[in-house]
Amino acid sequence: MNQEGRPQAPLMSNPRADRVRDVAKLAGRSSRLKTGRFLAEGPQAVREALSAHRAAAAVGGPAVVHEVYATQACLDRLPELADLARGTVLRLATDEVLAAMADTVTPQGIVAVCAISTATLADVLASGAKLVAVLCEVRDPGNAGTVLRAADSAGADAVVLTASSVDIFNPKAVRSTAGSLFHLPVITGADFSETVAALKDAGATVLAADGYGNVNLDRLQDLSAVRRAGGSIPAGADDGALPRLEASTAWLFGNEAQGLSDAELAAADYRVAVPLYGSAESLNVGTAATVCLYASARAQHN
Amino acid sequence: MNQEGRPQAPLMSNPRADRVRDVAKLAGRSSRLKTGRFLAEGPQAVREALSAHRAAAAVGGPAVVHEVYATQACLDRLPELADLARGTVLRLATDEVLAAMADTVTPQGIVAVCAISTATLADVLASGAKLVAVLCEVRDPGNAGTVLRAADSAGADAVVLTASSVDIFNPKAVRSTAGSLFHLPVITGADFSETVAALKDAGATVLAADGYGNVNLDRLQDLSAVRRAGGSIPAGADDGALPRLEASTAWLFGNEAQGLSDAELAAADYRVAVPLYGSAESLNVGTAATVCLYASARAQHN
Repeated sequence: MNQEGRPQAPLMSNPRADRVRDVAKLAGRSSRLKTGRFLAEGPQAVREALSAHRAAAAVGGPAVVHEVYATQACLDRLPELADLARGTVLRLATDEVLAAMADTVTPQGIVAVCAISTATLADVLASGAKLVAVLCEVRDPGNAGTVLRAADSAGADAVVLTASSVDIFNPKAVRSTAGSLFHLPVITGADFSETVAALKDAGATVLAADGYGNVNLDRLQDLSAVRRAGGSIPAGADDGALPRLEASTAWLFGNEAQGLSDAELAAADYRVAVPLYGSAESLNVGTAATVCLYASARAQHN
Repeated sequence: MNQEGRPQAPLMSNPRADRVRDVAKLAGRSSRLKTGRFLAEGPQAVREALSAHRAAAAVGGPAVVHEVYATQACLDRLPELADLARGTVLRLATDEVLAAMADTVTPQGIVAVCAISTATLADVLASGAKLVAVLCEVRDPGNAGTVLRAADSAGADAVVLTASSVDIFNPKAVRSTAGSLFHLPVITGADFSETVAALKDAGATVLAADGYGNVNLDRLQDLSAVRRAGGSIPAGADDGALPRLEASTAWLFGNEAQGLSDAELAAADYRVAVPLYGSAESLNVGTAATVCLYASARAQHN
């Protein structure tokens, strides 16, 4: 640790220090709510957090990272992380201190205290969002993480989690997002009805991903591909009434056991089914979201 | 337990009995290899296993389920499982015995000792397979399970795991497949080169899912949609040389950290990239496989 512009800080070596306990407490929801902070653990997550922090700082945005704690061994092994951390508070700590702070058994020598995003759906919509994923009562951190990663890969503009969904900032969920948490606005604790109303006001078509839906996603994709190619195909009876995947779209994804509720389904403009070609009884919410979001991305980008 | 045709068996109550230990040993690879059996735990997995067993029995196929162990409370709660189990060996056991047999903390009152499939790629290809997924050194049970479920949903004809891939019959992997293990042939321990040679001999186009691939999956999907609609679009320079998703296809999916090796890539006919629209650095293998297999399914079925 001998970088220009950063004060040398003493090595943190007491795993029972107040500051260490405060960081460890971020594994709990109440502490996250009180402080507006959460913990990213391990080199990959911290790298993504720091990259997002620098990108935000470059445009005068709010801080993404408050503090980074790392072992000297980690910084020796991954010197680019020390470079990336310039402009944030980087403190050296022992392995014992890192272990006391982290939820993972092996935080691999580095953690970052990050700011929970204060982005709002209104902000996202005002900036011209074309693709939004809404998670309705998704409870499993792994599923929420899979959907967030799929949304990130598909270039979605935001992910919204309704109030009774899993807390995406809990350590297991943060890990499952593999950094995507820092790539796009994630709006939590949203009221379902207000969210759908805002999306519709902004001109988005609201599509419910529903295994029993009467609209076949593959038909939408084929119609979109032909339309974008400037072609035409023999029209089905109802094709004119079908949603266009090229348009601004919000997808609703439901609870892993029950799917979307009747009220949630009724709020959507269309109920869209991902067809099942094999013997699977239903699609995992992560798989369904991947297929739906990629269908939209393909239509919107090509 | 008073069903016609099934002998009354005494309640199994000794968690240290040899038979209980033999079942518990199936959590280990060596016992699975020796016996050709694995354990399905919980009502959902057992239901799928028994359904597959009945379907196989109806066509004179080999046994899928050897024995079922359940608590009376479970059978009282889910009487359809007792019905499904007719024709197999169903033994009543105590909660303690079930707990000693199972890898899960709560097997929910029922487990089944199942036969590891002896299906071969030659059988699958001889029956006219159009869509096969090959997992090359995929190591994480959750990822393998996600790919298997996606293959099942997409109506794939088989999943092949190469020799150094995760053992899909270990308890965690079995759970992650959520029953799909019983829906399509799963071929394990395959030699990579022999597998690719057999696929090509059978006329399949071998596509490597590769983030750096020079063929864009979205272009393939658009070309396929327009072709199936009987239309035409302005041809790109190389479109004529591109693979057709409607054709018989085998997808290669690589290791989660390294992707496909150079040798594996070289063995494929084409290297196909799923485009990334957002900031994600790469796709999780489960997500990539979902998008690729669904693209093939859509082209082959519509």
